[in-house]
Amino acid sequence: MRVLILGGDGYLGWPTAMDFAAAGHDVAVADNYLRRLIAEKTDSEALIPTPTLSARARRFEALTGKKIKVFIGDLADSDLTFNMVRQFQPDTIVHYAEQPSAPYSMRGFAEARETFQNNLDVTFNVIWAVMEHAPECHIVKLGTMGEYGTPDIDIEEGWLEIEHKGRKDKFLFPRAAGSLYHTTKVLDTDLLWFYVRTYGLRVTDLMQGPVYGMSTPEADLDPALGPNFHYDDIFGTVVNRFLVQAVAGIPLTVYGGGGQTRGYLNLRDTLQCVRLATEHPAAKGELRIYNQLTETFTVNELAERVRRAGDTMGLKVQIKSITNPRKEKEEHYYNPTFSGLIELGLKPNYMTDEVLADMIERIIAHKNAIAAERIMPRVSWN
Amino acid sequence: MRVLILGGDGYLGWPTAMDFAAAGHDVAVADNYLRRLIAEKTDSEALIPTPTLSARARRFEALTGKKIKVFIGDLADSDLTFNMVRQFQPDTIVHYAEQPSAPYSMRGFAEARETFQNNLDVTFNVIWAVMEHAPECHIVKLGTMGEYGTPDIDIEEGWLEIEHKGRKDKFLFPRAAGSLYHTTKVLDTDLLWFYVRTYGLRVTDLMQGPVYGMSTPEADLDPALGPNFHYDDIFGTVVNRFLVQAVAGIPLTVYGGGGQTRGYLNLRDTLQCVRLATEHPAAKGELRIYNQLTETFTVNELAERVRRAGDTMGLKVQIKSITNPRKEKEEHYYNPTFSGLIELGLKPNYMTDEVLADMIERIIAHKNAIAAERIMPRVSWN
Repeated sequence: MRVLILGGDGYLGWPTAMDFAAAGHDVAVADNYLRRLIAEKTDSEALIPTPTLSARARRFEALTGKKIKVFIGDLADSDLTFNMVRQFQPDTIVHYAEQPSAPYSMRGFAEARETFQNNLDVTFNVIWAVMEHAPECHIVKLGTMGEYGTPDIDIEEGWLEIEHKGRKDKFLFPRAAGSLYHTTKVLDTDLLWFYVRTYGLRVTDLMQGPVYGMSTPEADLDPALGPNFHYDDIFGTVVNRFLVQAVAGIPLTVYGGGGQTRGYLNLRDTLQCVRLATEHPAAKGELRIYNQLTETFTVNELAERVRRAGDTMGLKVQIKSITNPRKEKEEHYYNPTFSGLIELGLKPNYMTDEVLADMIERIIAHKNAIAAERIMPRVSWN
Repeated sequence: MRVLILGGDGYLGWPTAMDFAAAGHDVAVADNYLRRLIAEKTDSEALIPTPTLSARARRFEALTGKKIKVFIGDLADSDLTFNMVRQFQPDTIVHYAEQPSAPYSMRGFAEARETFQNNLDVTFNVIWAVMEHAPECHIVKLGTMGEYGTPDIDIEEGWLEIEHKGRKDKFLFPRAAGSLYHTTKVLDTDLLWFYVRTYGLRVTDLMQGPVYGMSTPEADLDPALGPNFHYDDIFGTVVNRFLVQAVAGIPLTVYGGGGQTRGYLNLRDTLQCVRLATEHPAAKGELRIYNQLTETFTVNELAERVRRAGDTMGLKVQIKSITNPRKEKEEHYYNPTFSGLIELGLKPNYMTDEVLADMIERIIAHKNAIAAERIMPRVSWN
């Protein structure tokens, strides 16, 4: 299959590209390095420097003999996106190309507008590029479990049959996200659903939980091929950040009460899910939605797990609750369904002590690069 | 009250401005004449030429002694919107400033992108202008009944309590619109709801049905003060278009089966609804949603009503079904609730034979200006 990965420089984009190439697919990546730019502007660079996409693609080819084609440019530019899709003729587009930081999207007007326009315009251009130049192409879009927020009912996989006053109909599951970034993904889903039902596009929307991890078979081939690993308040996901705090001897910063429950998954499982969705495409006119997570934890449970793993490594891990910079429920009902991807073939890599210990070991090798001032929240929702 | 009306040059915007000014409010209007420009580009000019906003404001002041302040500029430009809100310090912003044509939004990529970016960017700027420069200001946003589409359950006023697997929660009523234009309003609502619940804005979102009419107390003062009255396939709403067809001796063009049911209201009732919402504002942190319609008809029923009114005026009105250019159900369940605005004080002006006969009489005075080629659908959803 010809697979075009948008946002191919990202934490997930680059490992996904290597995974598809290793599996024998014909892969191209596109990125404009927006995350790198924002990381520089906000003093939030990743723990381990990553070479450019072109350099990584060359290194990957040297090691494996597999080519990854690189497009560098802004997908909010419709001419560029249209030309790329026309030239590459993808069977699948994997769309990660969004400003992915919730705190950044809540920082002020300029950052909010940048997030809003970038994310919506890219999705809009991708839809139209497919309609105009590759109408059979399957779009695999990365959504987020954050689209649903924390409703007081069970979270189904994207859709809900509603009975009301004796009549029934099926609708998108109701959504109420906790940041502007997450809200842009709600809007993406609305927009995709309109074009799917009106023009018969094929779309899979993956509602992903926070991802952790730094190891994939291809990333482990060479230090230059690792994912960009963030531990800062802007781009760092909570598990990755806690592990860095454990190594640096900084108490794990639980936001507020710590009863916030979310669904998590290992980076290796993101790759499995995206490849399974690609290799089993949605039908024409179908918006297929999966909840992409493998287990749920409260923040307090996560902190305890990191402490336990740290203790076995001889680290003295402390946990400290700080004022929650976000506006979110700190105790709530949370019961998401996530059977669809398992039925498709996902074999979960759970968050075992060994998985956390392996990550701690890798982080220890970069301990001197940890910048403590990047860890405490620098953006508040208020 | 200080009332700022965005999209003040529109079919609804200008009559609303005069209505508020006549009622003693301090009124400003803003517009960039986007609709006029699109009307020119698509050969869809209104039946009766309307002077510029400045000229109409001068005429209105000469006749009534009431001032309407005019801002001309593009609200997608955040500096302009921010400066205007900072200077005028509105108590209420009435937000009509969107590209309002469903067919135009479905014409092709350029028109779709223009609609998408304009509508979303303006709403985004309005939200931020209020947050930054007038945080107590009440936003009265014009949504559309089209946001809901035609679900197989009763349509409540914006919200729905859902019971699922023995648990309950309240959500935005599910929405699935029939054009990109209508979908931009779904996205507007999602975006407003995020900022309302996160930052405590006060917002009323009015889900309005198709409006008909050309008479308001102030519009009737002088021909120069009338609303821009469209009968073309791009901007003409169905009742207005049918009446022009009746006068021109063109068979009324029913799209497909004609069983499509929608909720309608008189232009005078739009003014009542918007003023009632303004004079009874939403609370801080409240997204208040009303369904703004006064009666429901199928397209076939509308055509029959126009025929009956035309017959009493000596017109020989014919009705003809044509291929539906849209993608929509032509037979469906439709039962919207619309009690909220009536409880607030709305006194409906129903679609009587007299109301239609009065419109026919006014249209006859402009019969020679009718351009028949503007009436048949020039845009298809396929």
